[in-house]
Amino acid sequence: MALIVQKYGGTSVGTAERIKNVARRVARFHAAGHQLVVVVSAMSGETNRLIALAKEVQASPDPRELDVMVSTGEQVTIGLLSMALMELGVKARSYTGAQVRILTDSSFTKARIVSIDESNVRADLDAGHVVVVAGFQGVDESGNITTLGRGGSDTTGVALAAALRADECQIYTDVDGVYTTDPRIVPEARRLTTITFEEMLEMASQGSKVLQIRSVEFAGKYKVKLRVLSSFEEDGQGTLITFEEDIKMEQPIISGIAFNRDEAKITVLGVPDRPGIAYQILGPIADAKIDVDMIIQNVGHDGMTDFSFTVNRNEFTRAMGILDGVRQQVGAREVVGDNRIAKVSVVGVGMRSHVGIASKMFRTLSEEGINIQMISTSEIKIAVVIDEKYLELAVRVLHKAFELDQISA
Amino acid sequence: MALIVQKYGGTSVGTAERIKNVARRVARFHAAGHQLVVVVSAMSGETNRLIALAKEVQASPDPRELDVMVSTGEQVTIGLLSMALMELGVKARSYTGAQVRILTDSSFTKARIVSIDESNVRADLDAGHVVVVAGFQGVDESGNITTLGRGGSDTTGVALAAALRADECQIYTDVDGVYTTDPRIVPEARRLTTITFEEMLEMASQGSKVLQIRSVEFAGKYKVKLRVLSSFEEDGQGTLITFEEDIKMEQPIISGIAFNRDEAKITVLGVPDRPGIAYQILGPIADAKIDVDMIIQNVGHDGMTDFSFTVNRNEFTRAMGILDGVRQQVGAREVVGDNRIAKVSVVGVGMRSHVGIASKMFRTLSEEGINIQMISTSEIKIAVVIDEKYLELAVRVLHKAFELDQISA
Repeated sequence: MALIVQKYGGTSVGTAERIKNVARRVARFHAAGHQLVVVVSAMSGETNRLIALAKEVQASPDPRELDVMVSTGEQVTIGLLSMALMELGVKARSYTGAQVRILTDSSFTKARIVSIDESNVRADLDAGHVVVVAGFQGVDESGNITTLGRGGSDTTGVALAAALRADECQIYTDVDGVYTTDPRIVPEARRLTTITFEEMLEMASQGSKVLQIRSVEFAGKYKVKLRVLSSFEEDGQGTLITFEEDIKMEQPIISGIAFNRDEAKITVLGVPDRPGIAYQILGPIADAKIDVDMIIQNVGHDGMTDFSFTVNRNEFTRAMGILDGVRQQVGAREVVGDNRIAKVSVVGVGMRSHVGIASKMFRTLSEEGINIQMISTSEIKIAVVIDEKYLELAVRVLHKAFELDQISA
Repeated sequence: MALIVQKYGGTSVGTAERIKNVARRVARFHAAGHQLVVVVSAMSGETNRLIALAKEVQASPDPRELDVMVSTGEQVTIGLLSMALMELGVKARSYTGAQVRILTDSSFTKARIVSIDESNVRADLDAGHVVVVAGFQGVDESGNITTLGRGGSDTTGVALAAALRADECQIYTDVDGVYTTDPRIVPEARRLTTITFEEMLEMASQGSKVLQIRSVEFAGKYKVKLRVLSSFEEDGQGTLITFEEDIKMEQPIISGIAFNRDEAKITVLGVPDRPGIAYQILGPIADAKIDVDMIIQNVGHDGMTDFSFTVNRNEFTRAMGILDGVRQQVGAREVVGDNRIAKVSVVGVGMRSHVGIASKMFRTLSEEGINIQMISTSEIKIAVVIDEKYLELAVRVLHKAFELDQISA
């Protein structure tokens, strides 16, 4: 008997019929003797419907009130799934985020989980109930309803699994696992049977949309065994996200190619090369709550250097505006920006013990005439920024160069 | 400066546009210096949509889970109205029933309010906020979401007004007040400027749908000044529900004619006339949670009597089934039922000091050849059960006989 947390996304619970399907799957696990906590999203389309309704009355909806409204989406689903389970003769009980109590900070629309009181849930599990929890939501110290932001239901699932010390957290989605890269771009892409947390984290942060990055961080931190599966497949094994100690010797060097086109590049040219300059440039950006991804500062010469970083494309205009003021203040020559870039990354824990990955990546791109604009590396990832128009080509040639289509997953 | 509780029903908040209209009205009261608590229902159609969705997954939806789902309707409205108020520059803050905290018992789908903690609401009012509260819902001791049953938003409004000692509780609806009878049946029906609580209670319990009966009881008990108004009229005065001490001498004898066709009549014939028989017959009905309205037992003869009562038409078949077993047990001759009946009542505090109201009513009906099947009286009401097909005729002739079209209201 295991304690399993299952999370079903909006597509998996999009209609009454699909909710009944989820109930049947949950009932099978329950009948096999497992204890089950099921985390659900809002029915697909519901969150967008509510946001649109909010915008009809307030152009820029108040975050606290938006959370009050939007959190109802998951609340409807937990009621429905609990009913569907009862209809199958399974004892079930629903919980909103506030009822569990999933305590968060007060950052409406993007709250972070502070703690989870798992006592009620555990009591219900011990009494033989399936516990159905609303994803994506919590409550702050003052009793205000909060939401965790898009994709937050994954985080709810993982956080509950951590709090309950569950044996496995299964994320059911509309894909059947994690792929070497996006199959829409590379048809030869293959499903990985396992991937390490660090790789998954890099894949997610580099643009692979299978799991929300915060949930992967959470899972890694609390050692939650995480599995990605398709909710439309009967007996799929999905992709298990493993801890590094479990890795076999023959682990492939590279696990996947991630990419995104959500970023824009900003370069501050002719910056005086002195201590504190990075803070002077990025401080105002951080103050404006703009997230920065890659940061590159080259070795300076003649007391001057160039400073580049990337931000989300939605924040590009705002960031350029802020830097216009900063430029004069720090005495920089010029600020240039480009929002037609893409980022491509090769990810794999195996590259730690293998030299030549970077050079192979750079040679492959060079052979296609693709210029590299920025490079950033971690122990298990090499990311490059290129012109957006070469994105698909870059992903295809890298996938082939690292023989990702041939690895027996 | 007054503290006013306003309640808006589902039709009044049925679209984004109507919610903006409500916001404008609330903003006007706020600008006039009043403190405002606004109680809202779900957008019209929403509650039924959610119930239909529930029934798609569970034929007979679990009451606890149904409340979890259905309570989201009001939760969406409070968010929207708060946003609409902010858009007009009015500080506003929403509360679910649980957030207020409106403590109820645990009778899901028909919970009763136990207490209200008004401290947070009052603090917000004192800080200049309009407070927007979800009607129809509460929370029990264990933190379960409950609903008060259909029309429960009126009760929320009155209960909040009582807890806050508000100066007035205004119920905005799609009619502009309480009428002498239903204008769809009697075009000459007139709006009453005032009506006493007792009369309103009788009107409501006899079928007048303007206010939920529980809210009127509540208002009477806690001396809440209640006013019924139209949300589609700019400056209507509606109908004020007064306490008897305020009544003027020239109060009309009869205030209105109420009626309903929601009941069915059951008669147990040839019942042994002995102590305890009423309990033996009605006990099993009460155990089955079937509400009984009128109860009539005639003087017996030869040790036998007949026993009649009315139940809601929806419960007719179930009640007849139960009585089939009871009949043998109590040694009754026969059980007969009729679900094609209607109840018509004349209501008025003035009848206390006037004789002849009953005889006038009976004569009027008799002149039209309408047979009276059951009679039940209270101090301020006479109700009769008649064949359903005569209902409209009876209401019209009684309205005329008691000169309700001529009273200057």
